[in-house]
Amino acid sequence: MLPQSLQNLIQKIRILPGVGQKTAQRYALQLIERHRRQSKELALALNNALDNLQHCHDCGMLKEIDQPCPLCTHPGRDHHTLLILPSLFDVIHFEQLKCYKGLYHVLGGQLSPLDGIGPDQLHMGSIRERVLTYHIQEVILALSPTLEGEATAYYVSQLIQETPASVTRLATGIPVGGDLEHIDAHTLTLSLKQRSSYHNQ
Amino acid sequence: MLPQSLQNLIQKIRILPGVGQKTAQRYALQLIERHRRQSKELALALNNALDNLQHCHDCGMLKEIDQPCPLCTHPGRDHHTLLILPSLFDVIHFEQLKCYKGLYHVLGGQLSPLDGIGPDQLHMGSIRERVLTYHIQEVILALSPTLEGEATAYYVSQLIQETPASVTRLATGIPVGGDLEHIDAHTLTLSLKQRSSYHNQ
Repeated sequence: MLPQSLQNLIQKIRILPGVGQKTAQRYALQLIERHRRQSKELALALNNALDNLQHCHDCGMLKEIDQPCPLCTHPGRDHHTLLILPSLFDVIHFEQLKCYKGLYHVLGGQLSPLDGIGPDQLHMGSIRERVLTYHIQEVILALSPTLEGEATAYYVSQLIQETPASVTRLATGIPVGGDLEHIDAHTLTLSLKQRSSYHNQ
Repeated sequence: MLPQSLQNLIQKIRILPGVGQKTAQRYALQLIERHRRQSKELALALNNALDNLQHCHDCGMLKEIDQPCPLCTHPGRDHHTLLILPSLFDVIHFEQLKCYKGLYHVLGGQLSPLDGIGPDQLHMGSIRERVLTYHIQEVILALSPTLEGEATAYYVSQLIQETPASVTRLATGIPVGGDLEHIDAHTLTLSLKQRSSYHNQ
């Protein structure tokens, strides 16, 4: 016997990832009860984002429909380095860390034949063309050290062989704060093999 | 260098309870990427709920602006029992359990002088009038077995003394699935004192 508008809102909130019935109820009541003005702004921001965002044809990240992609065109960025990433989320992550100033290329996933994700399902076709057109000097593969990530990395490296670009990948090793005792054998072996000079860190 | 519409959406999503920057980013990307039509419906549902819901003058629950409160007026409900609850969330909870068919009265919180919540901050003024006007026979106090809940229960019981209504409260005891070994002394004492007949469950 809950009012229809409330039931409807609770149900729609459940499209959010990992949000079950209880959390949806809590979100709905919070939106109605506590922050009416802010909730109106949220509805407006969501509508605006849905109307105004599209994928950049080059990097695959979201950009404003009527503006050039800031990540691809900003003059302050290094236009000769290309970072290949699985998802939009990773771009946001790197942008927040402010540790990378080059170009991005979002694949929209990683190769996973069992899940029906092949090269045609990913944003891969334009990588070679981008590398050649924009005289990319280094392609950095930022893919997961998993079976899917390895397969994807290999596929992309094949796409750009016989271009002038060098291909690198993110280091595999012990995460900061990781306990040596609990690191798996494969990671430990790689971290030894790829050891770096202590004084160059 | 993220597009403004996306930054704005991420920021607005953070008004949700317990949602930090990372979760807000994940929600925003999910809303833009996966479920465009459903996301539009969510924005619409939120706007509708904000425009169409108001508090029922009697029970304090949300109701549609142009309709009578279903919880207060439905003929299938028991109009002589009144359940006093801290929050709207608790009403939803009871409604989903379908274990209660009487009337509700939402206080909007519990007495907590340290947090500046006194009787004037709560929806309490009309309880006595409701009990008398609607010939309530039983008032059930569904408040937390905490200091605030006990204070609130005592205050409400004083409001309705000298009315014909009997006052009851939810049982305090060992939760289902609770381990006897880890139950605190106070709960265990109360559960012994308020023991019920084995064959009447």
